[in-house]
Parts: sequence; C-alpha cells; structure tokens
Amino acid sequence: MNDPANLIITGQYLLTMDRGQTVIEEGGLAIAGDTIQAVGRAEDLVARFPNAQVMAEPHGLIMPGLVNVHTHAAMSLFRGLADDLPLMQWLQDYIFPLEATLTGDVVYQGTLLSLCEMIRSGTTSFCDMYLFAGDVARAAAEAGMRAWVGEVLYDFPSPNYGGLENGFAYVRELLGRYRHHPLVSITVDPHAVYTCSPELLTRLGALARDEGALYVIHLAENEEEVRTCRERYGRSPVDHLESLGLLHPQVVADHCVMLTPTEIALLAERGVKVAHCPESNLKLASGIAPVVDLLAAGIAVGLGTDGSASNNDVDLFGEMNTAAKIHKVDRMDPTVMSAATTLHAATLGGARVLGAEHLIGSLEPGKKADCIVLDLDQPHLTPMYNPISHLVYAARGADVIHSVINGQVVMRDRRLLTLDEAAILARAAEIGAGFRRGRNGG
Amino acid sequence: MNDPANLIITGQYLLTMDRGQTVIEEGGLAIAGDTIQAVGRAEDLVARFPNAQVMAEPHGLIMPGLVNVHTHAAMSLFRGLADDLPLMQWLQDYIFPLEATLTGDVVYQGTLLSLCEMIRSGTTSFCDMYLFAGDVARAAAEAGMRAWVGEVLYDFPSPNYGGLENGFAYVRELLGRYRHHPLVSITVDPHAVYTCSPELLTRLGALARDEGALYVIHLAENEEEVRTCRERYGRSPVDHLESLGLLHPQVVADHCVMLTPTEIALLAERGVKVAHCPESNLKLASGIAPVVDLLAAGIAVGLGTDGSASNNDVDLFGEMNTAAKIHKVDRMDPTVMSAATTLHAATLGGARVLGAEHLIGSLEPGKKADCIVLDLDQPHLTPMYNPISHLVYAARGADVIHSVINGQVVMRDRRLLTLDEAAILARAAEIGAGFRRGRNGG
Ligand SMILES: [Zn+2]
Ligand SMILES: [Zn+2]
Repeated sequence: MNDPANLIITGQYLLTMDRGQTVIEEGGLAIAGDTIQAVGRAEDLVARFPNAQVMAEPHGLIMPGLVNVHTHAAMSLFRGLADDLPLMQWLQDYIFPLEATLTGDVVYQGTLLSLCEMIRSGTTSFCDMYLFAGDVARAAAEAGMRAWVGEVLYDFPSPNYGGLENGFAYVRELLGRYRHHPLVSITVDPHAVYTCSPELLTRLGALARDEGALYVIHLAENEEEVRTCRERYGRSPVDHLESLGLLHPQVVADHCVMLTPTEIALLAERGVKVAHCPESNLKLASGIAPVVDLLAAGIAVGLGTDGSASNNDVDLFGEMNTAAKIHKVDRMDPTVMSAATTLHAATLGGARVLGAEHLIGSLEPGKKADCIVLDLDQPHLTPMYNPISHLVYAARGADVIHSVINGQVVMRDRRLLTLDEAAILARAAEIGAGFRRGRNGG
Repeated sequence: MNDPANLIITGQYLLTMDRGQTVIEEGGLAIAGDTIQAVGRAEDLVARFPNAQVMAEPHGLIMPGLVNVHTHAAMSLFRGLADDLPLMQWLQDYIFPLEATLTGDVVYQGTLLSLCEMIRSGTTSFCDMYLFAGDVARAAAEAGMRAWVGEVLYDFPSPNYGGLENGFAYVRELLGRYRHHPLVSITVDPHAVYTCSPELLTRLGALARDEGALYVIHLAENEEEVRTCRERYGRSPVDHLESLGLLHPQVVADHCVMLTPTEIALLAERGVKVAHCPESNLKLASGIAPVVDLLAAGIAVGLGTDGSASNNDVDLFGEMNTAAKIHKVDRMDPTVMSAATTLHAATLGGARVLGAEHLIGSLEPGKKADCIVLDLDQPHLTPMYNPISHLVYAARGADVIHSVINGQVVMRDRRLLTLDEAAILARAAEIGAGFRRGRNGG
C-alpha cells in the first residue's frame, strides 16, 4: 500500500459507513487509481500525499456512493406514461405493448437517461434486470458506472432474444464478454416464479452456479403472485424456490413483501439476500415488506428503486427517506428503521446483497474508490447535529455535487463528465414522442 | 381588468390547477401588480401586453405556488437533533427543554431558515403554529411570503407570553397589527384538546369567531391523544370539540389520523378543514390519516409538512410524493390518491383549507399572483407524458427555479431575492451550536 495517491478529496465531514459508521470531521479520502489508499483527517492526507490533486469542499460531506440493488433503468422512458392504475391494466395496456416494440438502441438510450439521473442523485452502483441487457451493460460501461446487469428470462418469447435457447446463448455470451470487466458484472435473471417454469428456474440456477453469478429474481412481490404460485404449485413462491433447491447465498430476491415468519427464517438460513423497493411497493399497492424482521433475522437487505415506471425515479435519497418512515408506521414504533440502519442498507448493506462487501459500500483502504460529495451549505441541511440523520431525513439527490466511481470523477460541480447529457435528453424526448404517437395511433 | 400587466411569465407548460386542471402548452401568465391579469397562450399574452417585462423559460413549467397548511417553521433549528425516539422521550428530553429556552430572536431566525427552504422548494403560502408568532409574522412579511400565523396557546405558562391573560393580549395585539396586511393573516391556535382546558378551547373559539380568524388545532393526531381525551372527558377529541360547539368551517384540524367513519361524517357536516401531514405521521408512527374517506366525504384537505423536527423538511414536493403513495398501500389500491388529487391538495385544496380559495391555489385572472416555475430540462423529468404525474411522482423542490408571491419575484434562477441567505445560514449554524453546547452542559 505504498502507491502514491493521485487524488485527495476533503470535506467538512467524511462518513466511512464502515461497521462502526465512523464520522471524521475535517476528513478526507486519498485515492490511488481505482482504489482507496487512505481515509483520515484532511490535513494528514494532504501532508502524506503532497503530489496528489486535491478536491477541497469545505462545506462538503463525503460518503460512499449509494448502491441501487434493483432497478430496470431503461424504464425511465416510460416514467409518467401511466400511473394510478390497477397493476394488470397498467402492465397489459401500457407497459407490455411498449416493451414489445423495444430495440437495443431504445434500451441503450433509456439506460443512459437513468444513468444521468443516478449519477446526479448519488448512486455509484446499480443492479439492473431488463431486456437487451447487452445494451444496458454497454451504457453503464460508457458512463463509468459500476453495474450488475442481467437479461430477464421467462417462458414467453422475448422482444430481444426470441426463444429460450437464444436467451441462454445471449446470457452466456454476455457472461464471457464481461468476465474481467472492471465495472460490469453479469447476473442470471429469471423474471419470477409465475413467469418462469420450474425447468427454466432450475436451468438458470445451474448456469448461475457454474458461472459464480448472482441469481436475481422478483420474489413474493404481492398477493397475486403468492396466490398464483399456490394455485399452480401448491406452494408459496419462497417454498417453491426451496423445493427446487434455489435458495442460496447467490440469490438476490427482489421485493419480498409477502413473507411468513417461517419463510423469513428460511431465507436467513439459506443466506438469501433481499432487495427492498419501498416506493414501488407503495405505488403499486403491493404492501410493505417486513424489513424490520428481515434485518432482525440477519438477512442482508439493500435498497432498490425498481423501475421509473413504478416509482417514478431512481433517486435513492428519496428511497431512504421513504424506507425510514414507512416501517415506523407499519410497526407503529418510531424507533425502528433508524437513520443509521437505513443508510447502511443503501451503502454497505447493498454491497453485501450484491456479494461486493469487500469492494464497495464503505470508504476503507483497499476498497474501490466509489464516493460522492454533498453540499451541506443549504437551508434544509442547516444546522448540523447529526450527518446520518440529515442524509436520510433531509438530503435530496440534488444535494450531490461530485461523484467518483472506481477512481474516476464522473460528476464535478453537478456537471456530468462521462455522459453527453444534452444529447441523451434530446434523444429520450424523441423516443417518448414516438411512444406517444404510437399510443395515439399516429 | 384593463390594467396593463407589468410582468409576463412564459413556459413550455402552464398548469392553472383550476377546477378543470387545465394545462396550456406554450402558456403564460400576465401579472399586474399583485394580481393575475390573464392566463393563456404565451404569444397571445406578449401581443396583448407589449410593455410588460417578459420572463421566458422555454423548458419551464409554470404552476400555482404550493400551500403548506401546517408547519412550525422555526423548528428547522431542531432538525436532526434527535430522531427515531419514542414520542414522549423525544418531546420531554429534547424538544420541550429547548423550547423553554426560546426567544423571539431565535424563533425569527429559525423561521427565516425555513422560509429559505420553503421558497427554494416551491411553497408560496404557509400556515404556522408556534411560540413568538409575532416574530414568525415579521419574518414572513420580510420574506414576502404569504402566511397564516398563530401563537400556540395551552394551559401551561408559555416561554413567550407567560400566563394565559398575557397570551390573549398578545394574540389580540397581533390580530390588530396584521388586520390589513397584504400577506400575513393571524389565526387563533389552541395547541390540542389534551393541552387546553375546555374553557381555553371555548374562549379561543369565541375570539376566532369575533375576529373572523381561522381556529387551528392539532386534532386526533395519534392513539395516545384519543385515549387521554377519552379518559379525561369520556369522549374522543372530535366529539369533545363538537360538545363544545367548536366544529365549524373556520376550523383547521391538523393531522386527523384517528377518525371513525361517524367522525368523518360529522367533520364534513360541520365544514371543518383538514391539514394532512403524512411524513410527520409516518416518522412519529402516528398512523395514516383516512384521507381517501375525507375527500370522499367532501372535506377540504390540504397538505402540511408539520415542523422540521418531525419530517425533517418543509419540502411539499416530497410530501406530495409520499401522500400519493402511502394511501395506495394503506388501501391496497393503486388507483386512490391519484397524482391529480394529490396536486390539488397541495394547491387549491390547501387554499380552501385556509379559506383563501378566492385568492390563491390556482392561476386564474383576478387571483393573487403566487406562482412557481420548474425547470423541466432534466433527466428525471424526461420524457414528458403528463406534467401532473411528473410533479407528484418525480419532481423535487430543487427543480423550482423561480418563485413569485403576490406579484413579487422572490426567487430567480434559484437566487433568493428577499432574504440574505448566507447570513441566515450562518446565524442558524451559530444557534444550533449553542443548542448542542447547552445539551452537553458546556
Ligand atoms: Zn422489478
Ligand atoms: Zn404540528
């Protein structure tokens, strides 16, 4: 660890979000290449690495970049197209018909749009499940974003790969292409137990095991999923996966709203990870996931935004705010889901969900340099008693001024450095106009 | 109405938020002094009023300023001081001891701090209940903010006025002083049924009636309030006010979380107005107010943030987002509390709660010129299918770039024009440091 640091970032506060949730006043971070070299008092770092470039932000708060453990980034293109509808009407009348017309280029553009929003609101890693995953991965790599990307598979023909054999070939090709990529990891993504046959679930399970990839699946999202699964297989979604031998530590289970205490104990025993998406669960009226119990059982829980068609954003600051509040009223107990617990879920907890606790989620020497800086010199963040409280209950994505991913500065003073934002917005507006014309039969 | 307009604001969209929720593309607003002169297509307005100054925002969305029907603005100074605690411990160990040390100057400074945040996040009217209401009113008037301001009264000695006779004198003096003020109205504010004797509630009721003032009271906020009221008076809080003849159209009832269907029918019959504060109700684990039923009963419902110690912000865009989602999961029905219903509550609904439907809450000729402009040229607001959806589900306070209150531009390009923000932040930080030292015994 004697590499000289090339970049030092200093601020009024540095939150390591390590296990002790250490806060360093007048703190800083020294980066060598893609790696955190040192964390400590700003003046010590500047003295120790005199040749490093220094980004000094006297009113800044430095913290790990946020980890979005479940989204469908390209669905940004559908944001606001239809809201406040029954789930099936929303899917069948709006989302499915549009998804049938998707192309790789449209998914690429929609992903770029979400990437602009994610970087602007402090996310430095995301886990994506969608069609045309190769185009999602390409967009993430170009943006310099850390990403876990999976092609969604189900029993029906896909607008991307067509039949399932092509789907497997597509996923295998992606796994090979990104095997040694510094930012992008490929996941194996069965859509859900009600859209994938037991054979498909099992075959994808074997693929994930062979490849050491995450197995990402929507699980127990709402009552209808549980009812459908019981009708078809005589078992709940969790028990169904268990019966197939598909509950294990590589599994990222998205939503997990409808769980019994027995199922929670089983998920804990099997080491399954959970992606909690409170805003989507509220907006679609799915329910409130038993996150207090999941955490008590020792299950790794991260925060996800789900897609922008059911949220309607990918801003994890908003998601933290909602998560911290919703569980209090659900339990009628203002002490649950504290600010510290919530911030952990959005950082180190999310890293654990993605099997990347050794790489990201906290600012510690040897980890990858993924960090963000917020501007504290604002009315809604004044006075300052407790940085963690402010981050969860008062801060907004728009307070993030700089973002660094894998040692690369991707946003500086709210200017995106790796993406041509004006071109991306213009293209997204065009695509949206096309969707609108399509719906109007024009 | 032949006064020439002196200011025209134009944008990509103008939302009138009138009863038809009219949206005008390439729309604009012509203002003469403090009053809206005309609303229509931008090019028509510019042709009709050739001498007016034009603020053109090609990517802008123009809408009525938001109405915050319940807050304690000066509590911004306590934001983040203590969170995630049982309500009584939070009040008795943190809030009450600090409130006992308050002075008029501290309340003035805390109100100014909230005013910076309110203007920055699109609020142009607020209804405040707090100590040292004269200082709250002074801050609002200086900021050019529209305000309904009440001195909170209860059975105990007040850090402001001491005993109750002084309290009545203080409120009467305020009522007189602001009787003809263009922006500030004085309200009559008993704290709650568990902190005010029936005699105090009744005497304040007579004062409000005599003065034609709003009667603002926390009502049925949580289970403990209902239990306490039943133990003491053998009646629920709503029935208690009814028995005192204190339910009538001038009443603004804050929270209304714990209501029976019979009570909802009674509130509707009496014309009582409701201030819905979802984020505070969640964070304090009070519950979820039956807003869907209140609206179905025809009750006027506005949105409030409550104080920043229990929210922790005064951003009504965040409050709309939460309100629209929380009722969906509470009813397990994604169609309730639509974006349009929610935006109505934050604008014209709020105006109705404050008895000011004829003055504010929509952009219509003859109303006061209170409006805000949002910048739509951002990733999280692209593409645009439905402006109302974006405002509720995706927009943030930080998207507001201009604000006009009573015809005066109070924020332009996110620069506050009526407040010395740097000085306010510095003073708030000092006060916060003092609170921290006080708690640490230093
Ligand atoms: Zn999903
Ligand atoms: Zn209150």
